[in-house]
Amino acid sequence: MEIASGMNYAPKGKPKPVVKPGEFVFSALRLDHGHINGMCNGLIEAGATLKYVYDRDPAKVAAFLKAFPQARAAESEEQVLEDPETHMIAGAAVTSERCALGLRAIRAGKDYFTDKAPFTTLAQLQSAKELVEETGKKYMVYYSERLHVEGAVLAGYLIDEGLIGKVVQVMGVGPHRISLSSRPDWFFRKEQYGGILCDIGSHQIEQYLFYAGEEDGCVTSSRIANYGNPDHPELDDFGDCMITGANGTTNYFRVDWFTPDGLRNWGDGRTIILGTKGYIEIRKYIDIGREKALSNQVYLVNGDGEKRIDATGVTGYPFFGQLILDSLERTENAMTQAHAFKAAELCLMAQAQAVDLTPDLQGRK
Amino acid sequence: MEIASGMNYAPKGKPKPVVKPGEFVFSALRLDHGHINGMCNGLIEAGATLKYVYDRDPAKVAAFLKAFPQARAAESEEQVLEDPETHMIAGAAVTSERCALGLRAIRAGKDYFTDKAPFTTLAQLQSAKELVEETGKKYMVYYSERLHVEGAVLAGYLIDEGLIGKVVQVMGVGPHRISLSSRPDWFFRKEQYGGILCDIGSHQIEQYLFYAGEEDGCVTSSRIANYGNPDHPELDDFGDCMITGANGTTNYFRVDWFTPDGLRNWGDGRTIILGTKGYIEIRKYIDIGREKALSNQVYLVNGDGEKRIDATGVTGYPFFGQLILDSLERTENAMTQAHAFKAAELCLMAQAQAVDLTPDLQGRK
Repeated sequence: MEIASGMNYAPKGKPKPVVKPGEFVFSALRLDHGHINGMCNGLIEAGATLKYVYDRDPAKVAAFLKAFPQARAAESEEQVLEDPETHMIAGAAVTSERCALGLRAIRAGKDYFTDKAPFTTLAQLQSAKELVEETGKKYMVYYSERLHVEGAVLAGYLIDEGLIGKVVQVMGVGPHRISLSSRPDWFFRKEQYGGILCDIGSHQIEQYLFYAGEEDGCVTSSRIANYGNPDHPELDDFGDCMITGANGTTNYFRVDWFTPDGLRNWGDGRTIILGTKGYIEIRKYIDIGREKALSNQVYLVNGDGEKRIDATGVTGYPFFGQLILDSLERTENAMTQAHAFKAAELCLMAQAQAVDLTPDLQGRK
Repeated sequence: MEIASGMNYAPKGKPKPVVKPGEFVFSALRLDHGHINGMCNGLIEAGATLKYVYDRDPAKVAAFLKAFPQARAAESEEQVLEDPETHMIAGAAVTSERCALGLRAIRAGKDYFTDKAPFTTLAQLQSAKELVEETGKKYMVYYSERLHVEGAVLAGYLIDEGLIGKVVQVMGVGPHRISLSSRPDWFFRKEQYGGILCDIGSHQIEQYLFYAGEEDGCVTSSRIANYGNPDHPELDDFGDCMITGANGTTNYFRVDWFTPDGLRNWGDGRTIILGTKGYIEIRKYIDIGREKALSNQVYLVNGDGEKRIDATGVTGYPFFGQLILDSLERTENAMTQAHAFKAAELCLMAQAQAVDLTPDLQGRK
């Protein structure tokens, strides 16, 4: 089951094209993470035209072409990068290789849209910042746990409408099912996946900055551990982190790989947003213990009472259309470059500073 | 409505007497916090005999006698402390005065059962430790958010049965309704209430130590703020904290005074306990957004699936009977003295170390 691991999470929405066929062309490079499917779906539903796909692994290309028959298999990365029609490269490389791919794409004159996390080192981030500054191109990130979840999109609207007052805290839990047998080798090598706070923690930090309206912050404290997977010693199966925003709001999140097999989805991801006049809880992928396995359940509690809103089919995924228009018109409505980079920076800092609580490593930094 | 503020939370259960009438006699001193009602209820349902009550405020005594007509109003604290029949003093003084009352009670040869938080300073804790060491008497604490909540009691049993594997994290949120007009003056004076992490944070830390089976830990990071109550500058209306246990488990909790008026109870208290084989979520006082306002809803997710268990009427409150027997038999089944003191110590440390994020105080320690 694709949905069981979360690795191939690729929600489908109603097509809402913002451009006509051929007005915005993109190509896909590197299919190491299944998120590439969600990235391409999202862009296509927003009107983008998918042209090329390339990966060194022909099996991955074949599977991709089955999902996206309109794409053409290119013979090389160079062929794609040199294609004058392609505006944007969508890539889901091994995490540690995402930056290098992005730099090649941007140097070839393309905007870049990468799976998260976008970097595994601060040096990579710095090189991307410099090239973006120099070229004016975009290095955008698929922070899917907000951008591609209707409950998360709706929560943003509810906050904007002032329904919970001023946001003072964002708390998130991002448990994921580990599905050991379906994971590639690089998933277990820290140098390649970057550590849990860098990897799935990046979603959490991006959401915090967005919902709290923070442009900057610092990591107050962070922890990682391998509590239950001694056979995979470089896997962090647990991480958590406190961030304090420049404006004084707070964030806490926990991420882990402990989703039990009995859960009817890959993870019980939640976001709880506390405001001075109310709060919102997003039960993103499952509302546990209910007869139906519903996703996108948004709970709003404020002075008017308690409401449950089913956001499925309500908001769509405006990010993708905005991203296309941003790329064509050089605006920043989908996401600012500063925001994408700040979330990346904080997740790298969280990982770098984390105390490792793995049994028999206690006390080790 | 009593339940609206949480200040008078005093759940009633099925009487389960562990002693015969008159075998265990206790008296109540100091009625500053409404928790005294829950403390007395719990002991009486477990078979204890309530003898005297005394407070300097006759109105509080009159209200107490209405709830507990079997009690007799004493003429002074001395009369109660000198009563040879009284085994235990139950007290809910202003937080900063709880220790002094306890020292007087213990010096008079009684066990002491105080509302939480039991101390506001480490010096108080030290004096209580020394006197307990010297006398062998008990300084027990009404950590009601676990001891007097059936969902919380049930969760302990589920963990003991191994249903979620080894506990690796306990997360708690403890929002409370502020009900400004019903609060006494001391509630807004930090020296008297001790700060939010000391006050309502103490529940959270006690739960963490209990569910994770930790006997010690250290405060990794903590924060407080007054985000929304500038008219009460000494009130922390927000606090959060990370603790790392001596055995490497983790705790995070947030407490706040932002429960909106639309919630059908005084606070959406939750505890989420993550184990290596599953997790438990306790929705203690309300399961938001449902037709009925149910409390004690325990969600268990593990390899066998997702279950919702209504714990109301299931477990009762075994703490009180155990406490009576502990007092009579000098055992420690209800709670060890070390556990009660460790939770108190950590909440004092959390408060003392907290960074204050109150707007215009940012950066101040």
